[in-house]
Amino acid sequence: MKLHVSSDLHYSFLPETGAVVSVHAATSPDQTVLSESLVIDPLPKLVLDPADARGERRFRAQLSGDVRIRYEAIVDNGARSLLPPGAIRHAWTDLPVEALLFLLPSRYCSSDRFISFAESTFGAIPEGGAMVQAVLGWLYENIEYAFGFSSSDTTAEHTFVERKGVCRDFTHLGITLCRALNIPARAVSAYAMGLKPQDFHAVFEVYLDHAWWLVDPTGLVPVENIVRIGVGRDAADIAFLSTSSPCRLIWQTVDVSPVV
Amino acid sequence: MKLHVSSDLHYSFLPETGAVVSVHAATSPDQTVLSESLVIDPLPKLVLDPADARGERRFRAQLSGDVRIRYEAIVDNGARSLLPPGAIRHAWTDLPVEALLFLLPSRYCSSDRFISFAESTFGAIPEGGAMVQAVLGWLYENIEYAFGFSSSDTTAEHTFVERKGVCRDFTHLGITLCRALNIPARAVSAYAMGLKPQDFHAVFEVYLDHAWWLVDPTGLVPVENIVRIGVGRDAADIAFLSTSSPCRLIWQTVDVSPVV
Amino acid sequence: MKLHVSSDLHYSFLPETGAVVSVHAATSPDQTVLSESLVIDPLPKLVLDPADARGERRFRAQLSGDVRIRYEAIVDNGARSLLPPGAIRHAWTDLPVEALLFLLPSRYCSSDRFISFAESTFGAIPEGGAMVQAVLGWLYENIEYAFGFSSSDTTAEHTFVERKGVCRDFTHLGITLCRALNIPARAVSAYAMGLKPQDFHAVFEVYLDHAWWLVDPTGLVPVENIVRIGVGRDAADIAFLSTSSPCRLIWQTVDVSPVV
Amino acid sequence: MKLHVSSDLHYSFLPETGAVVSVHAATSPDQTVLSESLVIDPLPKLVLDPADARGERRFRAQLSGDVRIRYEAIVDNGARSLLPPGAIRHAWTDLPVEALLFLLPSRYCSSDRFISFAESTFGAIPEGGAMVQAVLGWLYENIEYAFGFSSSDTTAEHTFVERKGVCRDFTHLGITLCRALNIPARAVSAYAMGLKPQDFHAVFEVYLDHAWWLVDPTGLVPVENIVRIGVGRDAADIAFLSTSSPCRLIWQTVDVSPVV
Repeated sequence: MKLHVSSDLHYSFLPETGAVVSVHAATSPDQTVLSESLVIDPLPKLVLDPADARGERRFRAQLSGDVRIRYEAIVDNGARSLLPPGAIRHAWTDLPVEALLFLLPSRYCSSDRFISFAESTFGAIPEGGAMVQAVLGWLYENIEYAFGFSSSDTTAEHTFVERKGVCRDFTHLGITLCRALNIPARAVSAYAMGLKPQDFHAVFEVYLDHAWWLVDPTGLVPVENIVRIGVGRDAADIAFLSTSSPCRLIWQTVDVSPVV
Repeated sequence: MKLHVSSDLHYSFLPETGAVVSVHAATSPDQTVLSESLVIDPLPKLVLDPADARGERRFRAQLSGDVRIRYEAIVDNGARSLLPPGAIRHAWTDLPVEALLFLLPSRYCSSDRFISFAESTFGAIPEGGAMVQAVLGWLYENIEYAFGFSSSDTTAEHTFVERKGVCRDFTHLGITLCRALNIPARAVSAYAMGLKPQDFHAVFEVYLDHAWWLVDPTGLVPVENIVRIGVGRDAADIAFLSTSSPCRLIWQTVDVSPVV
Repeated sequence: MKLHVSSDLHYSFLPETGAVVSVHAATSPDQTVLSESLVIDPLPKLVLDPADARGERRFRAQLSGDVRIRYEAIVDNGARSLLPPGAIRHAWTDLPVEALLFLLPSRYCSSDRFISFAESTFGAIPEGGAMVQAVLGWLYENIEYAFGFSSSDTTAEHTFVERKGVCRDFTHLGITLCRALNIPARAVSAYAMGLKPQDFHAVFEVYLDHAWWLVDPTGLVPVENIVRIGVGRDAADIAFLSTSSPCRLIWQTVDVSPVV
Repeated sequence: MKLHVSSDLHYSFLPETGAVVSVHAATSPDQTVLSESLVIDPLPKLVLDPADARGERRFRAQLSGDVRIRYEAIVDNGARSLLPPGAIRHAWTDLPVEALLFLLPSRYCSSDRFISFAESTFGAIPEGGAMVQAVLGWLYENIEYAFGFSSSDTTAEHTFVERKGVCRDFTHLGITLCRALNIPARAVSAYAMGLKPQDFHAVFEVYLDHAWWLVDPTGLVPVENIVRIGVGRDAADIAFLSTSSPCRLIWQTVDVSPVV
């Protein structure tokens, strides 16, 4: 599908602040950026970091005072495939080296503590793809999508106990359960069509059968309506804005619409 | 049943240390202390606190150097009854005032975070007694009794995630789920016949149908083999030994046997 | 000083909910309730619990639909004294039995983990009163009074790390440090004159030299401007409103003014 | 200095287990591996991962039954320099892209929560090198090197509260404080001469003045006695042995001695 995505961030930075901004649609095999523009007002000195293997492009800048960052792109994500239930889970020795990191526990995803639960709940399912689908089904049955019960401190353990959360929390718990099952899993920040209210979205990817597969653990958005921005071990890594000292939100909008 | 219970604590206290020792069998309606002896060597100045409503008797002392504390008793707990499945759950306004505290979350039992899980898992069961039995059944099915996975820092949340623990952990999670269901629940330290290795035991009580009912969430010991020592909100309150500064264990034994 | 205190709580309870409400000024030796009124609209079946040793009076009710609870009183707290720097710290064996509980760690106050810090920072001060004043001075120097950095999940450990918080956080950290120094300390909910914005206040009391002494760890309110409501081990115990299921705030006001 | 380093790991893997083993001395500009040998008995299928930018080399294997892994090397680390106090701290836009990740909080290093403490304690020091030395001095003054107070669950926050720990805990708290000061910091696993008892060591590196500098936050080992193995965000990433399911230690030795 061809999607028009945009984000418009308006923040106040006092004093001058180092910032890493991650709002560019990734230029990866499963999505093509057809056109894009970035406007920063006022214009700072800018460092555009090289794209990584997933096509992720972040930029860095020293920002000062009121700054508006507007990004817009038309993206074709037509080549994205659905996770096949029969996709196999690899032995550790058969994984690409860059997937290994996504087997380890991380800040919000203490997968090492979930091994008993994951094994007893999902361990008997023979194929990796079906196992991930069972994890998604369990999330759907057991976690309520609800605002106001989680914050930037909320971990997968909290969500597992409290049974409520938003996209970030579903993503952390989904990643955690997959890693506990020896399936590499990583967090993805995204533009997504159909979210209410419209905002950045958090989803995740699993590595099975020689490829990364995108899934939305909230079940809110089909993968063809998703445009990947960045990837990381969990939400600590994929913030759209990280800064060297606190900044203040003035306003912010995100928009995704079909190109007709 | 008539039981002979004993504990023998040998610790080193340097420098002089304030201690609260809770090893006396409680003198409560459901158990009668037929005879008992306490030997402390060397003998300190001692304060024996008055028994509370449950018959709990703690003593305080300033201890110094190597000290041995030997307690022995013969206890008849013959009047203890099993929790009836039909026991009703009270409205808050029908509870005795001293039960209210045991509805609140406490250090190791964050019942406020378990409300969604408890309601969706046990909320449809009509009677309080059957609800508590369902909680005990859930613990039996889902938590593995295992040493080496928990410590004095382990909370009910940790055990709910990791699915492994010892008597203290089963007790905390059981209490937490009952409180989340609006059933007052409190921790009980105990002597218990049949534990391997022999040690102090942790169990809990629920308030239903105008009475407290003792249950063993590990399922290891029938209630007629248990002699109650002390009660509290959770393990923070029922330690057999609390001290004003760190002390050092030399050795310690606990023994329970039938009086024939 | 004679103070006029009032609170007006307007909440929605659906379905019928058990509630414990703690808004009455305590009737304790250091404050006298000269007159008071309680209006609940609509009027539920009510249980007024007996006052405890500190004069704390809570009431319980089953509440349904929109309910307004208005409490008003004139209180004379003229007999309240300031903590003397020379007040002695008791050995455990010299404390009244009801003070012992307030030496133990509790949900938000894990005093057992602060022993090294407390001993190395305050341990050399010879008298209990001066020790508590040093704790208050340390809080004043090191913790910033700031909204938006803490929630009902925030513990003394969080506040010690993040160095920011509100009255509840100052109270938890102050209690924690005192208990780590073997000084009994308990949380107090209160009406306080001069808070901006006006709200319920959280302060604490320490037991030294045969008496409990009230202190305000935020330094915002002199003790003669404080009217005690309830006491407990920490914020888990002194909520002005605890309910058997979630309720919804409509609005709420608190007011304290001098009687002229 | 030329050092002879060795490790000998003897573990039981049942059933067949995926393992990542990180025991090779890194082949980096500041240390040269003069000779080395690796013996695995019995010999599994092996995947040697390519060295990363720091020369880190891990290997993967599927291991089954009792397995012994013996690594030995002679390493010259003669080119290692001491952190200069005048080393400058970079603006975010002047850092190499691969250093950015080490500014972010990670599982055991929640640097975002330490910003107030770090700024108020170290913020006035003008140069990055002197700032890191002040952090190391603070650790030396305030944290006691002690066994038995921490575990694999212990975070920098725990150590900051409890003021006791081992090399892993000093490393986490040191990294956390540096990141809170906008200095990239990463964990390093190492062989170290002079540890008692001899074991793997955890230290860290900071990025200042266009280079990574190795420091030992415990102060136990001079940097010329350290041989780097692997680097990562914290201890979650630099385990010498990670496995796809639990394994059992039989015995393990580590040894470091000077080559004379």
